Amino acid sequence: MAVVIKIVVCILLFCVAYFDVVQPAHQQITGRYELGSMEAATVGAPWPMPQKYDVMQTYMFIDKSNFEFPVIAKTCDLLEDAIARYYQIIFATDHESRSKRSLLNRERSGASVVMTKTKMVSSTKDSNNHGQLKNISIILTYKCEEYPSMNMDEQYEIKIDNWDNPGEGLLTSDSIWGILRGLETLSHIIHEADDGAVRVNSTFIDDFPRFSHRGVLLDTSRHYLPKSILLENLDVMAYNKFNVFHWHIVDWQSFPYQSRVFPDLSRKGAYNEYTHIYTQDDIAEIVEYARVRGIRVLPEFDTPGHTLSWGAGRPGLLTLCYADGRPDGTHGPVNPVPASTYDFMRRLLAEVVSVFPDAYVHLGGDEVNFGCWKSNPEINKFMQKMGFGSNYAKLEEYYIQKILKIMETLNHGSMVWQEVFDNNVTVGGDTIVHVWKGGYQRELAAVTAAGHDALLSSCWYLDGISTTADWKTYYACDPQRFNGTEQQKKLVKGGEACLWGEWVDATNLLARLWPRASAVAERLWSNEDVNDVKTAASRIEEHRCRMVRRGVPAQPVNGPGFCKHEFAQ
Amino acid sequence: MAVVIKIVVCILLFCVAYFDVVQPAHQQITGRYELGSMEAATVGAPWPMPQKYDVMQTYMFIDKSNFEFPVIAKTCDLLEDAIARYYQIIFATDHESRSKRSLLNRERSGASVVMTKTKMVSSTKDSNNHGQLKNISIILTYKCEEYPSMNMDEQYEIKIDNWDNPGEGLLTSDSIWGILRGLETLSHIIHEADDGAVRVNSTFIDDFPRFSHRGVLLDTSRHYLPKSILLENLDVMAYNKFNVFHWHIVDWQSFPYQSRVFPDLSRKGAYNEYTHIYTQDDIAEIVEYARVRGIRVLPEFDTPGHTLSWGAGRPGLLTLCYADGRPDGTHGPVNPVPASTYDFMRRLLAEVVSVFPDAYVHLGGDEVNFGCWKSNPEINKFMQKMGFGSNYAKLEEYYIQKILKIMETLNHGSMVWQEVFDNNVTVGGDTIVHVWKGGYQRELAAVTAAGHDALLSSCWYLDGISTTADWKTYYACDPQRFNGTEQQKKLVKGGEACLWGEWVDATNLLARLWPRASAVAERLWSNEDVNDVKTAASRIEEHRCRMVRRGVPAQPVNGPGFCKHEFAQ
Repeated sequence: MAVVIKIVVCILLFCVAYFDVVQPAHQQITGRYELGSMEAATVGAPWPMPQKYDVMQTYMFIDKSNFEFPVIAKTCDLLEDAIARYYQIIFATDHESRSKRSLLNRERSGASVVMTKTKMVSSTKDSNNHGQLKNISIILTYKCEEYPSMNMDEQYEIKIDNWDNPGEGLLTSDSIWGILRGLETLSHIIHEADDGAVRVNSTFIDDFPRFSHRGVLLDTSRHYLPKSILLENLDVMAYNKFNVFHWHIVDWQSFPYQSRVFPDLSRKGAYNEYTHIYTQDDIAEIVEYARVRGIRVLPEFDTPGHTLSWGAGRPGLLTLCYADGRPDGTHGPVNPVPASTYDFMRRLLAEVVSVFPDAYVHLGGDEVNFGCWKSNPEINKFMQKMGFGSNYAKLEEYYIQKILKIMETLNHGSMVWQEVFDNNVTVGGDTIVHVWKGGYQRELAAVTAAGHDALLSSCWYLDGISTTADWKTYYACDPQRFNGTEQQKKLVKGGEACLWGEWVDATNLLARLWPRASAVAERLWSNEDVNDVKTAASRIEEHRCRMVRRGVPAQPVNGPGFCKHEFAQ
Repeated sequence: MAVVIKIVVCILLFCVAYFDVVQPAHQQITGRYELGSMEAATVGAPWPMPQKYDVMQTYMFIDKSNFEFPVIAKTCDLLEDAIARYYQIIFATDHESRSKRSLLNRERSGASVVMTKTKMVSSTKDSNNHGQLKNISIILTYKCEEYPSMNMDEQYEIKIDNWDNPGEGLLTSDSIWGILRGLETLSHIIHEADDGAVRVNSTFIDDFPRFSHRGVLLDTSRHYLPKSILLENLDVMAYNKFNVFHWHIVDWQSFPYQSRVFPDLSRKGAYNEYTHIYTQDDIAEIVEYARVRGIRVLPEFDTPGHTLSWGAGRPGLLTLCYADGRPDGTHGPVNPVPASTYDFMRRLLAEVVSVFPDAYVHLGGDEVNFGCWKSNPEINKFMQKMGFGSNYAKLEEYYIQKILKIMETLNHGSMVWQEVFDNNVTVGGDTIVHVWKGGYQRELAAVTAAGHDALLSSCWYLDGISTTADWKTYYACDPQRFNGTEQQKKLVKGGEACLWGEWVDATNLLARLWPRASAVAERLWSNEDVNDVKTAASRIEEHRCRMVRRGVPAQPVNGPGFCKHEFAQ
């Protein structure tokens, strides 16, 4: 449906007499034995769908050895790096399965080789063939920013063999971030045709994201994730135009963050103090790898709950739980009473903002269990002194507000999970509230009515699994579909696909996350009216095979089927 | 519990004054911050648990560069091959993560290296240390069979630093298959100690499988699985003592088997006739790879249902479905009427038994949809002629019996899915009935009461997924727990873990199958009384990390936790 709308728009704007959308690839099975349940993948369709996407039936072919990206821009290190990377992504597709197939063709049938050649020759006589495209100019008109940020400009424009520049290719943006997104789109629309040649259809794209915060949350505490997997995942995030890696770096189970000021935290709190940690060098490498792909790294240091692993390396930080009038040997949330707690948090967070260049830190604040606080005499004495009665939410508020204050003095923004808002903690207007529980529509309405920026994750907890096309439910969830004013809707900055780590490590992370998170990617990038699951099914099928071809173990998304180039380790 | 029983047995048999089971590894977190939900992995415990397993606290250390497997046996190609393979598996463990850790140790603390050395020196003064083990003799007393079979002898005995041979190591079996299983067990009990040294505890093992048929079913029709994945999976099957690869090679969706006599079947029925097929050479390689690991390859050619993909390459084979008195363009099951059907099946199955050396072929026979048969006038005329009335199960019986007859003339055994039995098809006594539906206890009772051999898969459909420790439910299912005589119980030959292919391909197969199938492996190999989930949890935790260390992406099995050597691609 969305594609039809695009086509209508295209007719109106360009008055092209004859064109069509790209035909989907056909299954190998003949029509008479058509296999109804299998999705036919599109060919050369971008994911996520651009805001404005007009594609003609006419096309140009590209010869890898005679193709360039001429650059018209001031010096921009990110740009040079990106062009080299995308040249590789677009053309380094002659991998094993393809070579094997060519080899098989040759072995089995000389005729098929000749046939292919005939096709390529004949195709030059095809009236849709507009000849060879030898370059796509990259025009960066304005900003070469160093770091991606919440308000980064990601708009770009692509013109390939357009009415106003026939036979030419252009990618234009005011911002390096737009150029990065545009290169990714180019790497989708430049595709392998049936005859094995590389083609790009005559195309006009004007594109920008619907939401500015499009994140993937990974959890490196329940299971440690080696740096190599985090880097590879950043690649795949870029393939899907995600722009925030929310790094839930520590939690109850382990503390892999190696702190300079508090080295005991990982020394005693990591699964292994040597092998299961992130050194300052590791983090710098991950932040840099993300930066050059236009991805922010948003660290989360979740307190006062979810902190058991902090305790070993920082005696006195956690609340001692009591039973029968004495400590029972277990520990609860951070102890919000002593001044030493805030001194510790100040020094830790000061280090965190020096290590992670992002303007925000996620402070957690979810699922604080009041049971241990209730059992502790010191806590109760403090409650009395402060006049909190038996309202432990007040104590949580007391703690969180002191932490938010620390972030203010550090001149950084804060994000918090929704409980902080739900428990009536007074937070500054610039604090972003992250909605993750059920009943999210009511919650988004309340959070934005209170004037807070909001992020949505409730419907995108990808750690839940099933053997269904569950991407469709992620796809159907819209962060602005709640009762609220236009002004409220604008306060929703986006959302995040979350892959909590209880059942996920390097063995299965990429397969479990992709292409299911791709559904979230399109929801957060594309226009609200791009919501037809049926047409999306064919495109996500292609997109998953595109990722597979790039070496990503993105798992089957629509049930039985195949990729032209299967995954091979 | 099971370990306790073993210990008691051990005391009675050997009257050793002082010993203990190997201590589980401790989490990195100190005791005060113990993380209750995480399973502590065992160290050096075998999976599946041997029938008789006595392990002492005493141990010997092994130096890779000064260790051998001397062989006392007649020439046996499989044995030489296996010794080379297991030497590699046991000692080729200095992979990345380990090297990285050593490097880190050195970088961070000269002291820790010294400490390790001190430990190794001091360990020679440890009274449990029985010195260096320089060889384990492999004694194959009798059979070097060429092919594994249903009745293969897999018993073996291991003695390491035993009371009757202190300081020595022996692996003895009457059969090459027993030697293979014993080498696998050795590769588990020879383990890396905390100090990084390679050790093996003083051990006595007398082991043999409880069931003779221990299979893994993979489906290469819903998704094509590249040969490399099938080979890798055979390795992992061997790590778990599985001995049958049930290859559900073709089905409704695609026909990747490249037939010599009917090449059109894959030419027109495969997802791609060049890249998504198994050539005769591919199959020979897979069969050989399985053979040297003591694994049978049991091919399934499922008819008369599940055959849509056969139709394109064999016009006239499938039933034309009718609507409003004429063919509606769709196809149903194999048409059981024409003689040409049986001529085709005879020639195809004759080829199949020449390609797959196993004594059995799985003929399928499940889920035959009678709707299309009912609609077809030719079928109904035949039903009338045969006096079947409107009982289409009779027609199915007619078809299946002719196919079983073909298998008899080919001098091969047959396996069928339970519907064949349920529909009262008279099958020969040597036909094995494969139970897959719910209510399996009733079904096993009925099948064995009728005197048939049976296989169980109902409780082991691993394509269903969830984020729970679902291995525990697989582990709890016992194929002999049904109402029946001892004679009936003996007719249960084992079972198979099934991973149907709707949502599985090379991107996620290994992670989804392992270590969940390992639970089935222990159920089918170990003694019936090895059924305590709690002690199994620690051992399967170790076993999954063992597989991870061997490069298998075996996914987390018990929720949060870690492996000493994490998976790195």
